[in-house]
Amino acid sequence: MKNIYAIGVGLIGGSLAIDIKKNDPSVVIHGVSRKESTLDEALRLKLIDKKAALDDIEHADLVIISIPVDATVKLLPTVLDKIPDTALVVDAGSTKVDICRAVENHPKRRNFLAMHPIAGTEHSGPSAAMEGLFVGKTNIVCEVEKTTFKLQEKALKLFTDIGMRIRYMNPEAHDKHIAYVSHLSHISSFMLGKTVIEKEKNERDIFDMAGSGFASTVRLAKSSPEMWTPIFRQNKMNVIETLDEYISNLSHFKEMMEEDDFEGVFNEMKNTNHIKDILNGIH
Amino acid sequence: MKNIYAIGVGLIGGSLAIDIKKNDPSVVIHGVSRKESTLDEALRLKLIDKKAALDDIEHADLVIISIPVDATVKLLPTVLDKIPDTALVVDAGSTKVDICRAVENHPKRRNFLAMHPIAGTEHSGPSAAMEGLFVGKTNIVCEVEKTTFKLQEKALKLFTDIGMRIRYMNPEAHDKHIAYVSHLSHISSFMLGKTVIEKEKNERDIFDMAGSGFASTVRLAKSSPEMWTPIFRQNKMNVIETLDEYISNLSHFKEMMEEDDFEGVFNEMKNTNHIKDILNGIH
Repeated sequence: MKNIYAIGVGLIGGSLAIDIKKNDPSVVIHGVSRKESTLDEALRLKLIDKKAALDDIEHADLVIISIPVDATVKLLPTVLDKIPDTALVVDAGSTKVDICRAVENHPKRRNFLAMHPIAGTEHSGPSAAMEGLFVGKTNIVCEVEKTTFKLQEKALKLFTDIGMRIRYMNPEAHDKHIAYVSHLSHISSFMLGKTVIEKEKNERDIFDMAGSGFASTVRLAKSSPEMWTPIFRQNKMNVIETLDEYISNLSHFKEMMEEDDFEGVFNEMKNTNHIKDILNGIH
Repeated sequence: MKNIYAIGVGLIGGSLAIDIKKNDPSVVIHGVSRKESTLDEALRLKLIDKKAALDDIEHADLVIISIPVDATVKLLPTVLDKIPDTALVVDAGSTKVDICRAVENHPKRRNFLAMHPIAGTEHSGPSAAMEGLFVGKTNIVCEVEKTTFKLQEKALKLFTDIGMRIRYMNPEAHDKHIAYVSHLSHISSFMLGKTVIEKEKNERDIFDMAGSGFASTVRLAKSSPEMWTPIFRQNKMNVIETLDEYISNLSHFKEMMEEDDFEGVFNEMKNTNHIKDILNGIH
């Protein structure tokens, strides 16, 4: 594992590069990006050792793809075309069905491991990369049986060494559940932000009234639309299902209020309070 | 300002007691609560110096009421009945219209200052109290003109001394805007928690997939139903308005997804991204 190519050097790609390099200073991290300015920034921030072009991955031992999921679907077959037979390719996309499908019949399918490291912040780009982002976090690996055993082992070591625990799941289950525990949160946050901004657009100083609770619930509304639009497109049916249920729960809450059923309102909240126990352990 | 009576010694009452005592160790904090066990806990945690009964407030220089807003509406007239003519009474309730109305014709109305310190966490009870909770936070004061000037001055000094900035607002404006920047966030969070728990109730280990984003958006779902139900009841019309708009925005987002209008989805998020600037400065 000497030559590592990071395709995408933003929050996830950059943070992976930092931690992998820290664990093994002998590796050379080559950055690949559509934008020259992004690579310059990554180099300046010391996320990568060298700038590279896509064709250079013919020298790769490992390729890490951390770009928007629509770009991953398009690029992944080409990446597999170009790598040597011994190289491992991983992706870090927030959807897994379309990505796995894009290479299901590729002759080098066994060189690819589909992953979703559950880590991040609402920030993006090279400047958002940080050391230790993955410590104690979950890395979901899909269709592990389709990857060469030797490359599975390499990946397992690499990602446990940077502090991650590995969970195995099929792509369909991943996309279904992640819609609930991640994608829906982003939409609820964006729409909460929209609702408040629309109402208060002429009264900016109203935000003086906002406390840490508001900040917490709308934090994800800072996220990158460039990254999230393709996620929602690829996971459309699952996300729509979560929205249906969320809207239905909100409407029911509103109806109880309209009917002065505040015992019902109380019980709704009480029954949800045990989220406390569930959240223990999420950082 | 020697004898301070804290009616309610939970997160807000307890935290106020800590900071006020720290600034002036000569004050004596007397705790008043319906529950003896709560007072014992507050004493053990050194939030209060002494346990007291409601009738003891005839010796008060200052009474701080930090209990659920329905209890405040009921108790406030009695508190004003019992205090000496020179005492100041403040409340810390998250609604202001009903509380101000409850004492509008009280002969000691001028001894009362209606407040809403915008500070807190999702935890409650004496053990949730903490030092420095109010530093840099906003304290909204309503109907300041109805309070004796001398007592206004006392209150202003007390709360700026513990680090708060003061904003003046009428109770109607307070209740309308706080519905957007606080009450709606709590409902969005509770219903998000409910939606995910319902779906995943038989698959608890799915929460391994939840990252910090989910934790952030559902944090407020840990809040106390005992405190929040009366808030929603008192601010019913404003809260229903926010829910109508929030549900409408979510439904529109879902419709765009159903119609494959992902340019619209992108624009919705892009237009909400400037919440970044708004949130700067909220802690």
